[in-house]
Amino acid sequence: MTSPIPAELDPPQRLLLGPGPSMVSPRVLRAMATPLVGHLDPAFLVIMNEVQAMLRQVFQTQNPFTIAISGTGSAGMEASLVNVIEPGDTVIVGVAGVFGARMAEIVGRCGGRLVKLEVPWGQVFPKAAIEEALKKAGKVKAVALVHAETSTGAQQPLEGLGQLCHDHGALLVVDTVTSLGGVPVTVDAWGADVVYSGTQKCLSAPPGLSPLTLSPRALEVIKARQGKCPSWYLDLGMIADYWADGKRAYHHTAPITMVYALREALRIVLEEGLEARFARHRRHSQALMAGLAALGCTPNASEGHRLPSLNCVTAPPGVDEAAVRKALLLDFDIEIGGGLGPLAGKVWRIGLMGESSRQDHVVAVLAALEVLLKRAGRVQRPGAAVAAALEVYAS
Amino acid sequence: MTSPIPAELDPPQRLLLGPGPSMVSPRVLRAMATPLVGHLDPAFLVIMNEVQAMLRQVFQTQNPFTIAISGTGSAGMEASLVNVIEPGDTVIVGVAGVFGARMAEIVGRCGGRLVKLEVPWGQVFPKAAIEEALKKAGKVKAVALVHAETSTGAQQPLEGLGQLCHDHGALLVVDTVTSLGGVPVTVDAWGADVVYSGTQKCLSAPPGLSPLTLSPRALEVIKARQGKCPSWYLDLGMIADYWADGKRAYHHTAPITMVYALREALRIVLEEGLEARFARHRRHSQALMAGLAALGCTPNASEGHRLPSLNCVTAPPGVDEAAVRKALLLDFDIEIGGGLGPLAGKVWRIGLMGESSRQDHVVAVLAALEVLLKRAGRVQRPGAAVAAALEVYAS
Repeated sequence: MTSPIPAELDPPQRLLLGPGPSMVSPRVLRAMATPLVGHLDPAFLVIMNEVQAMLRQVFQTQNPFTIAISGTGSAGMEASLVNVIEPGDTVIVGVAGVFGARMAEIVGRCGGRLVKLEVPWGQVFPKAAIEEALKKAGKVKAVALVHAETSTGAQQPLEGLGQLCHDHGALLVVDTVTSLGGVPVTVDAWGADVVYSGTQKCLSAPPGLSPLTLSPRALEVIKARQGKCPSWYLDLGMIADYWADGKRAYHHTAPITMVYALREALRIVLEEGLEARFARHRRHSQALMAGLAALGCTPNASEGHRLPSLNCVTAPPGVDEAAVRKALLLDFDIEIGGGLGPLAGKVWRIGLMGESSRQDHVVAVLAALEVLLKRAGRVQRPGAAVAAALEVYAS
Repeated sequence: MTSPIPAELDPPQRLLLGPGPSMVSPRVLRAMATPLVGHLDPAFLVIMNEVQAMLRQVFQTQNPFTIAISGTGSAGMEASLVNVIEPGDTVIVGVAGVFGARMAEIVGRCGGRLVKLEVPWGQVFPKAAIEEALKKAGKVKAVALVHAETSTGAQQPLEGLGQLCHDHGALLVVDTVTSLGGVPVTVDAWGADVVYSGTQKCLSAPPGLSPLTLSPRALEVIKARQGKCPSWYLDLGMIADYWADGKRAYHHTAPITMVYALREALRIVLEEGLEARFARHRRHSQALMAGLAALGCTPNASEGHRLPSLNCVTAPPGVDEAAVRKALLLDFDIEIGGGLGPLAGKVWRIGLMGESSRQDHVVAVLAALEVLLKRAGRVQRPGAAVAAALEVYAS
């Protein structure tokens, strides 16, 4: 039964420019080496309050119910849906990528009646299409949309959609996993009711928590459920009693070290300032996209709806994209993502999220791609992509 | 909307002797400061294999399906039940504390027909009672038992129970959250089919993962489900494809840093050796219990079934147990637990789990209790409890 004990942990040092996790600041790494206090310790309760207050700022919301779920982004997605939906409830889901499809899948598993809206991957849903669906679908419990579709690099506009949903008696559920902290997420201005995210993208903490906020309207709907939430672990009514100041009723043991990490990551976000951070994300994305264009890559998401945090482009024609990605990782220690579903084998997904969004990283990935494409005979003289990026930086 | 950014993280330094989290080794804390690799990086897949191999040793199983769920122990409990149970399935649950009650609650939420076995809190279920329940209940899908009931300090014997369940066509589901790594957990010898644990108890990693193992029999039952698992996040059939060597199909982003922590914690467990570790847990528990007896505390769990990892005793007569615990935390920086449910206000729960199970910790908590009880006028001359513990250590 016994086998040798593995050696001391010593993974390669990678530059993380994939769809997540992003690079983590040494400050966050160091925070995680802090000895633990108990999850019901008054000192931890103070830390929870601080995290909640900072999350509200980043989500741009006044929602008292703003917490971190003890799981990765997908746990936040599941929590958002299974608490709201009861068997038979109609839910409109916008599906234009993997994460919209995952929402639709979860709606089915909790017994909801799914109304699937579809546009080609990379495109976004016009407000009129959502309005039409709301009018046709009868009584609708919720509309679920992905703000930042990690599989396509598209950014869904959400202005006015909360009001539209509320006019039809529906809640608005939004996935901001790849946008929160890098792209404006304005929960209250959108009128969004259930919004979740992940820590390992633009917030640049390790994966393991899912920030989540509920409007008072959503909380009412959850409290008025006929039956219990099918998930005990993700039962937001019970979790609310743990996070609620003054209650702190034991539900499950919080992942204390991950809360330490998130706290430090949020401090960094707020020290930089949201506007400066969004501008930084836009700038580096612009430079990267200019470089990628010089390599013959074309953006996947439709014009005017491109995520600066997740840059999805078709690989240059005639290039074995998987072989390039593999060499990028193994020879240059740079991780980028490939395509999922119908985009598999066709696109690269280059994340410039949080700590990953920097000039040196943009230059590094473009330079490495140029060398690899030159070796593959797909580029005549390397340097044009880096030059195109520098042009943006110099302007 | 903006509020001041909180100061640098600087929580008090506590001695964690509650029901979890336990103390975490500096080696584990340091491992968590390691920069991340991606969750699909070949280097991370090696790390996952290493963690799986070490978990098999600690669980004492050959089960290929031995992984860590991306959530705390309660996520492991939920995963264990929602994957196995389909609506209408009969499940026998042994309830003699909070965690048995939680299992029963989850059975209800996933539509199972609950057959609740009960004994007074602190007692364990005789094999004959389980056999009788199996005979009476008709077709039973699973029997779910808590090996180490954290709320009472009782340890459920499991010898022969796997065979008994299998003879009746049922699976055996076991909660080892407070035993794995501190008390013998012999999955294959028990014939247990679904066994889960937590990282923040006797394994002494921070909370955030739930080690889980499935017998081939359990995996077959899960694969033969009529309907989909109600939880997408905890769907073990899909998670299996991520952990399966050679597949590594993306499901959700693994909490990479927590896997680093678990890996280092498991190395420490195996370096010490399971038998030595179990003996250490027994020894320090013995010494602590001798000291507590000198203070007038009596064990809550029935004789012969006391957990060395979680020592649950009635507080000395006439003592305001909550006030003592509060002073212990705030004046001495020592955390111990109080009672839950019917034991609230009556017992102390002192965890000696993993890194917390040490002579200096036993002496520290007894000494602090003696000082506090002397101040409260409940002890004449302090020192007897420490002396009683030292007697054990010197023998």
